[in-house]
Amino acid sequence: MKGTRKMIYFDHAASSYPKPKTVADAMCEAVSQYSANPGRGGHQLAERARSAVEEARKKVALLFEAPSSKHVWFYQNATMALNQALVGFPFQAGDHVVATSFEHNSIIRPLEKLANEKQIAITYLEPNEEGLITVAAIEAAITPNTRLLAVSHASNVTGALVPIQEVSTVAKSKNVVFLLDASQTAGTVSIHMERDGIDLLAFAGHKSLLGPQGTGVLISKKDFQLTPLVVGGTGSHSELPHQPLNWPDRYEAGTLNTPGIAGLAAGIDEINRMGLESIWEHEQSLMEKFLKETKQITGLTVFGPDDLTQRVAVIPFSLDGLESHELAMVLDEHYQIAVRAGLHCSPKTHEVLHTSEAGLVRVSFGPYNTIKEVDQLIKALKEISQAFNG
Amino acid sequence: MKGTRKMIYFDHAASSYPKPKTVADAMCEAVSQYSANPGRGGHQLAERARSAVEEARKKVALLFEAPSSKHVWFYQNATMALNQALVGFPFQAGDHVVATSFEHNSIIRPLEKLANEKQIAITYLEPNEEGLITVAAIEAAITPNTRLLAVSHASNVTGALVPIQEVSTVAKSKNVVFLLDASQTAGTVSIHMERDGIDLLAFAGHKSLLGPQGTGVLISKKDFQLTPLVVGGTGSHSELPHQPLNWPDRYEAGTLNTPGIAGLAAGIDEINRMGLESIWEHEQSLMEKFLKETKQITGLTVFGPDDLTQRVAVIPFSLDGLESHELAMVLDEHYQIAVRAGLHCSPKTHEVLHTSEAGLVRVSFGPYNTIKEVDQLIKALKEISQAFNG
Repeated sequence: MKGTRKMIYFDHAASSYPKPKTVADAMCEAVSQYSANPGRGGHQLAERARSAVEEARKKVALLFEAPSSKHVWFYQNATMALNQALVGFPFQAGDHVVATSFEHNSIIRPLEKLANEKQIAITYLEPNEEGLITVAAIEAAITPNTRLLAVSHASNVTGALVPIQEVSTVAKSKNVVFLLDASQTAGTVSIHMERDGIDLLAFAGHKSLLGPQGTGVLISKKDFQLTPLVVGGTGSHSELPHQPLNWPDRYEAGTLNTPGIAGLAAGIDEINRMGLESIWEHEQSLMEKFLKETKQITGLTVFGPDDLTQRVAVIPFSLDGLESHELAMVLDEHYQIAVRAGLHCSPKTHEVLHTSEAGLVRVSFGPYNTIKEVDQLIKALKEISQAFNG
Repeated sequence: MKGTRKMIYFDHAASSYPKPKTVADAMCEAVSQYSANPGRGGHQLAERARSAVEEARKKVALLFEAPSSKHVWFYQNATMALNQALVGFPFQAGDHVVATSFEHNSIIRPLEKLANEKQIAITYLEPNEEGLITVAAIEAAITPNTRLLAVSHASNVTGALVPIQEVSTVAKSKNVVFLLDASQTAGTVSIHMERDGIDLLAFAGHKSLLGPQGTGVLISKKDFQLTPLVVGGTGSHSELPHQPLNWPDRYEAGTLNTPGIAGLAAGIDEINRMGLESIWEHEQSLMEKFLKETKQITGLTVFGPDDLTQRVAVIPFSLDGLESHELAMVLDEHYQIAVRAGLHCSPKTHEVLHTSEAGLVRVSFGPYNTIKEVDQLIKALKEISQAFNG
């Protein structure tokens, strides 16, 4: 295909590319060799499919320190996992939720739906001058009616991290359930549900975990009395007219995406092989290089926290004289560099940054990106800046 | 893997096996060559992913004669598609739904949830003495409060077909919306939404359509004011706090399963290559052979309609002296024949057949099964019958 061979890919925050070859191999094996229905049959092929799903469940449980693999539920994407957590939460009218301006529409839209349908109240916390959501702000926002704290671990626009251990301590002390959207951090930042005090953990499989699209996960630390979002066949307790109580079946109606789940397991294997710390350090070094070099580019404004320890390698910027979509197109067509432009499904973030109209260009680095590729991006931006601002 | 090489696979009603090689190839290509986020980026790789999804959408629309590809919505399975149709339907308290005893839990459980939460009433029609749901029975069950008719095109236990053209004529004349679950017929029986008068059509991608697990579809003929089941990022109208109105985005929040959808498109290509009529005739001939030969087996009772034109190749049976799970295990372990035992997620069907306690063994044939394989099954059943009833 035109342009895909030499492409430099900096859109990992949307979906990682390339995937490890083992991911495609695992998916191919699942669909070619054991495409039977996991847990729905009484034969060897169905058993093999079931076993592949359970192996993946164990790997997820281990990586995130879930209480057990039964607490790990598979969905088609993080959005569905978040809907299960939010729309399924036993809210009553008047309950209050604390979220932040950094939330993705996958949190904002379910919350706004709940505000309409169940009369809950929502506070969206704004970041401080350094572009960070502080624990003090969260603590101050919690009222006696606050039932849930729904927070993105890292902004998918600015990369700003939330200090989850401190946040969870506050949540626990106020008896508030802590839901973390780790879509931008799972596979890059070490996350342990027990150590970090996370009650509900949702994330995508196709971003830093290097798995395929079609995979999302919700892990529930204990029974929060969530109502199942989807009901139907579970292959267990078929005689019941309602979802059975046993986990994970209660929260996983219908046939699972076995090839996708097998691919996610292979992605996790690769993360474990590379090591989370190495991935983090590598992406930090790419970000450091980029932030340092782009300071000298005329008309280029970078957003997000200055303190690198408080952000992941997701960096938004603007260039005077060009709208975000124009800049992305120039990078794509003239330089074969893939970035993302626009609002990134996070409208409130852009309100805070005052970039709602033009949007921003976002680059996001992955474990296979190199310093050389970042150099090429910097060179490209310098050339474009000279052309438009020179 | 032990036993998988020589295996005879008769569990197509749960999930088809093997898949065409082109399905695995398409998935592998998607995950290896264009794993960017479809429609979420401004670069060539994202565009390629978007284009693959749109091509698949067009193929689905064409096969089922949907009004346009925008009316085709992708989900992780048919259960989710049915939940979107049922739980999303604008019911009011006192509304009535007509369904049948043949429904899968993917229809029963959402309906029972609605009965509890929205106070709707449900009638589950029983089949006549020939094991068929008649149009007359459906017509008689419709009341002035009936808003929806939710029917499985073919029972996933007995294979019994519902005459959808006659049913839709009745539904239309009574102003009732017609939801068809075609999970057991899509890819085996010709289904045209326009010709057959179907309002909402749901089906799985991983059964007779030969696609991978992780794919389900809902096609909506027109705007029935469905509430989106899942809300979140759509990559369009990101500034809105609620789902945008445009289709398919409104009903497809979050990242789509691009590899799975690409695989489903390859499955549909294979269906088109073989021809629906050839597939139907082939599976009918296998069923005819099986039904004829098993009549002579002592202690073996076959269920389902005698009239082959009114059923698909899904056949349940019992054998005196063995519980369904025992029989399935013997077939699996001693004969390498994969079948399914139990209630098949369709409890009411088994109530009608008086087989709720022991369940039944179900065989279901696919396009790649051969007469020789059916002969081996018959031979195996004769041997088992002699051992236990001889």
